[in-house]
Amino acid sequence: MIVVMKKSATEKQAEEVIKQLGEYGFSAHVSAGAEQTVIGAIGVRPDFDIRKIKIMDGVGDVFKVTEPFKLASRSFRKENTLIKVKDVTFGGNEVIAISGPCAIENEEQVFAIAEIVSSAGVRVLRGGAFKPRSSPYAFQGLGEEGLKLIRAAADRYDLVVVTEVLESAQVDLVNTYTDIFQVGARNMQNFPLLKELGKFKKPVLLKRGFSATIEELLMSAEYILASGNPDVILCERGIRTFETYTRNTFDLSAIPVVQGRSHLPIIADPSHAVGLRQLVPAMARAAAASGADGIMLEVHHEPKKALSDGPQALLPGQFRELMEQLRSIVSVLGRRLA
Amino acid sequence: MIVVMKKSATEKQAEEVIKQLGEYGFSAHVSAGAEQTVIGAIGVRPDFDIRKIKIMDGVGDVFKVTEPFKLASRSFRKENTLIKVKDVTFGGNEVIAISGPCAIENEEQVFAIAEIVSSAGVRVLRGGAFKPRSSPYAFQGLGEEGLKLIRAAADRYDLVVVTEVLESAQVDLVNTYTDIFQVGARNMQNFPLLKELGKFKKPVLLKRGFSATIEELLMSAEYILASGNPDVILCERGIRTFETYTRNTFDLSAIPVVQGRSHLPIIADPSHAVGLRQLVPAMARAAAASGADGIMLEVHHEPKKALSDGPQALLPGQFRELMEQLRSIVSVLGRRLA
Amino acid sequence: MIVVMKKSATEKQAEEVIKQLGEYGFSAHVSAGAEQTVIGAIGVRPDFDIRKIKIMDGVGDVFKVTEPFKLASRSFRKENTLIKVKDVTFGGNEVIAISGPCAIENEEQVFAIAEIVSSAGVRVLRGGAFKPRSSPYAFQGLGEEGLKLIRAAADRYDLVVVTEVLESAQVDLVNTYTDIFQVGARNMQNFPLLKELGKFKKPVLLKRGFSATIEELLMSAEYILASGNPDVILCERGIRTFETYTRNTFDLSAIPVVQGRSHLPIIADPSHAVGLRQLVPAMARAAAASGADGIMLEVHHEPKKALSDGPQALLPGQFRELMEQLRSIVSVLGRRLA
Amino acid sequence: MIVVMKKSATEKQAEEVIKQLGEYGFSAHVSAGAEQTVIGAIGVRPDFDIRKIKIMDGVGDVFKVTEPFKLASRSFRKENTLIKVKDVTFGGNEVIAISGPCAIENEEQVFAIAEIVSSAGVRVLRGGAFKPRSSPYAFQGLGEEGLKLIRAAADRYDLVVVTEVLESAQVDLVNTYTDIFQVGARNMQNFPLLKELGKFKKPVLLKRGFSATIEELLMSAEYILASGNPDVILCERGIRTFETYTRNTFDLSAIPVVQGRSHLPIIADPSHAVGLRQLVPAMARAAAASGADGIMLEVHHEPKKALSDGPQALLPGQFRELMEQLRSIVSVLGRRLA
Repeated sequence: MIVVMKKSATEKQAEEVIKQLGEYGFSAHVSAGAEQTVIGAIGVRPDFDIRKIKIMDGVGDVFKVTEPFKLASRSFRKENTLIKVKDVTFGGNEVIAISGPCAIENEEQVFAIAEIVSSAGVRVLRGGAFKPRSSPYAFQGLGEEGLKLIRAAADRYDLVVVTEVLESAQVDLVNTYTDIFQVGARNMQNFPLLKELGKFKKPVLLKRGFSATIEELLMSAEYILASGNPDVILCERGIRTFETYTRNTFDLSAIPVVQGRSHLPIIADPSHAVGLRQLVPAMARAAAASGADGIMLEVHHEPKKALSDGPQALLPGQFRELMEQLRSIVSVLGRRLA
Repeated sequence: MIVVMKKSATEKQAEEVIKQLGEYGFSAHVSAGAEQTVIGAIGVRPDFDIRKIKIMDGVGDVFKVTEPFKLASRSFRKENTLIKVKDVTFGGNEVIAISGPCAIENEEQVFAIAEIVSSAGVRVLRGGAFKPRSSPYAFQGLGEEGLKLIRAAADRYDLVVVTEVLESAQVDLVNTYTDIFQVGARNMQNFPLLKELGKFKKPVLLKRGFSATIEELLMSAEYILASGNPDVILCERGIRTFETYTRNTFDLSAIPVVQGRSHLPIIADPSHAVGLRQLVPAMARAAAASGADGIMLEVHHEPKKALSDGPQALLPGQFRELMEQLRSIVSVLGRRLA
Repeated sequence: MIVVMKKSATEKQAEEVIKQLGEYGFSAHVSAGAEQTVIGAIGVRPDFDIRKIKIMDGVGDVFKVTEPFKLASRSFRKENTLIKVKDVTFGGNEVIAISGPCAIENEEQVFAIAEIVSSAGVRVLRGGAFKPRSSPYAFQGLGEEGLKLIRAAADRYDLVVVTEVLESAQVDLVNTYTDIFQVGARNMQNFPLLKELGKFKKPVLLKRGFSATIEELLMSAEYILASGNPDVILCERGIRTFETYTRNTFDLSAIPVVQGRSHLPIIADPSHAVGLRQLVPAMARAAAASGADGIMLEVHHEPKKALSDGPQALLPGQFRELMEQLRSIVSVLGRRLA
Repeated sequence: MIVVMKKSATEKQAEEVIKQLGEYGFSAHVSAGAEQTVIGAIGVRPDFDIRKIKIMDGVGDVFKVTEPFKLASRSFRKENTLIKVKDVTFGGNEVIAISGPCAIENEEQVFAIAEIVSSAGVRVLRGGAFKPRSSPYAFQGLGEEGLKLIRAAADRYDLVVVTEVLESAQVDLVNTYTDIFQVGARNMQNFPLLKELGKFKKPVLLKRGFSATIEELLMSAEYILASGNPDVILCERGIRTFETYTRNTFDLSAIPVVQGRSHLPIIADPSHAVGLRQLVPAMARAAAASGADGIMLEVHHEPKKALSDGPQALLPGQFRELMEQLRSIVSVLGRRLA
């Protein structure tokens, strides 16, 4: 931690700061410049609230020197974490496609979509059985019945399942059916859920909250890692901004930023970011070109009848065409779509 | 729902839209203007996803006519909802002060602060036993031990208790000790938790998520109301913006906006909004002047030693002086601080 | 400037940084901690682009120590700057009310409103002759004719005039008629205009851009100060956020923040911030309670017929009632409304 | 315009609204639903301020039906506008690369970079002679001397010049040297400048303001079109959000959105969006994959010595490698990089 005293600060104020730092367990290292005194506080306390010093008299500014996350950082682990689920590996040379409906609606639907997805070469099936909806009057998902259906469809087509879990009390149930747990954007800071998932040996797909900074996303990953589960796949899915034409603003720069700061794989979900089918292909291609480790795409055989997010689901033909484009784009980067 | 066709839309496209609206259960009412066709879709489906129509060929724009919430709206109930907890009433002429520490730390602390708070005329004591912290390495709260301490301190000084509950699995436990449940900003869209709280006959203090619109806040209140609990107290506590000098941006216009659109009481929490003690008094006064039904203030007898958010806690003397100012300001509006 | 090396940085990388700092004119002061090397760069270059160091190999983070503005800062000048225009003084104990129409429309209108404003005790008349409108098809203002009208109305009622200037080419013309130049939010970073205004000895009312940080507002003030004009009045008028119910989000915390960091007076404009008449009184009261040095209020005798921003203009009766409330609120803070 | 009355609105209130609409020149078309009365206001007034109706008693909500821009819209002109400058055409099948330094610094620099740019196959040279800098103490550009240098360098290598103009008073001077005028993000709503540029027969590259919506960008283009100049090239360069890791958030979804709503070409500027060299290649590739009609890239032969934005300038080798990747990516979309 670096403490910059105000130009107008008195010597006594600087001494107070140094004394206080000592009480908090830091040793102080003072350098008096021509204009200002700067105090380096040495000691490792990643959770220290720097505002405790910021409010002291004479203090101009305080900066944190250590990153607030550790296990998730590139400094802690230099090589990419590879996360293997059956024959799929996240974080390596392959770019992983994940597809399926927003919500599991009935047997016919999930099998029809699993067939479309599988025949396009996708190996991971998504679909929600527990849906977090803004309105209490909207379809809330099939619950366990939905979990059974997605498991059965995935088994038929030899696919990996990823499905959402909404709270810690649901983890055991979802664990029975899924291969990868998904934590949705609204739950990125549901800390009891993150701690619970840390106890399992099963990968967690952690979506960025729509108003979370990249650092907060990595802090939430740290919760899972610190609880014992090393397999976290991050996901950029759009952030909330003043622009209202799209559902959210797809922050693709998160892809190279996270790859620089962390060893964990990061994928992108253009469907939720933009929210309108006609914008999804352009953004999916952009995600592939940005270097994402995977692309999540919603697809529906009859989107008009979809019970959730139909308007952002790709039509089967559109989906197949897009998959071909993505294949070509990732090959420009020397990678393979899988 | 109003569907505005593009100027370039064909008659056939308009017919498609009308047909589709019929399939979704709406009756259509067409008015062909000089420039554009406008279709009124009549029927009450508050959860209908308007993007389903927005993506159809020839459609320019779609607007929702009915508010997505019902029980929470001023149209549904014209008079203010009065929420009575012991001798305190939210939503009436009194402006309710709520004070206490951020987190309950130990017996000595919670009793000392309860004494300060009570002697300043405050009748509601706040304090967290379960703390949602961004870092897994930060103090996570005392748990049930903390609940016992705040109950005991409140009983000693005859105060009402409000304390946070983080997930549905904790509701029964927290219910044993608290008078008002608090749902924090990060859990505003924890829908299983909201549904669970809807089953109780105990008021819920629902904080606005830091990236939630006012409409989403009211939708989350709707979850609780629709589940059977009519007593929801809303709380503005700052939203996330590009400005980084303050922790969040205190959106005080939410106070008059909510009072126009809903019958539920709304209070303000300047401590979390600005995050630095020296800014709290100015913002607390502003909240009072804006017409808030209550003001929540963090106070600590030894903020330097606070385990959570010490830098935003008021010092006892500052707190007493501020209470006097608030008393004078609300009296300008013909209200009484209680 | 403080440079924090990555934990993984090599000694050679640290040496490269030190060498480069030397080339940029800084002397380096190294402290090697247990975990990381921290380099203090000593030297005063307020405009130095810290990204030049941030992109070097082995660098983790870089922090600026000196504030980027100087003349505008509280460190440079401890006492409040008092800006006197005729018998009105900004920045002292008086809270200055500024009122009038959004745009000057015709003689009858500006005189009628000047009469309303003056009889309510206001001494500064606002009104735009050059209007920056999003649409090229909207009313663009009366131009010089408008300047003549507002000057005449102000003279009749013995009021101070504040009116907007859009570009440097207009400054001489506007100077002929106004007492205070207004720079609108959209021009906060129109640097040629700021430099031109720096050459005059007449106060400038500088509005915060709707996406400008507080620091950027102070940097724009610095342009005027550095060009020779010491009399800058700052104005908070709402920032752009994701919330769409109000026109902008009124960031009242800017008031105490600016008062801490700068010696310049800062006023608030609730009319533009919220954009709807019924929300203005609550926000004007909040601004007064927050400690603003002035309040700008749009008022119109016939807002239905207003050519610009009628919906946010107060009606005369509403305005007079609000003035009384503001008077009482500022007196709680020991100030006087003038 | 569609006016939705509140459920609680009286008949008399609806009549008032209808009468008022008549006074504003609209004819009203009423449809009384089961729950609410909806009034269609027919008449074409693209600049009408809908808040005038929104504030009336009994009004719930008001929606604009006509787009606020006309000449810029796809409805007005179905085919893409092709903008030809010498042998370069924007808006057609070719994706145009634009490169050069941030600022023109001296003869040696601009010629060296022009050589690098030209030999990589780029045909448009960028570089600023008038620089809008946040700090008054930062390098403000060489002025006319810079314009002469970029013109000379471009002529030597047979390149098209694009350079920024800061205010209407500068337009004639810049016109002498440039082939395309650039309007920077901070000036997107400098309306006098836009009107002045509308009088010329020379293309204008209009950058999106960092807090402007896509609709406002199109409104600003409308100013230029309505003033007589049909050749506007739009540019996405990042918007301001809460995320601070990158300089701005690159809103790539603006590319397909604008292409759907307007016939004008739109390019992307990843250098300013992300602000750090190491992130530029990923975002440039993403922009190409999203379907942008051009990519603007800052490049510098000695970025360490650059007087402005050096940290975001690509190194020559990096630049050449990136150009090859972009070439392959646009070919996946059947386009050609030029």
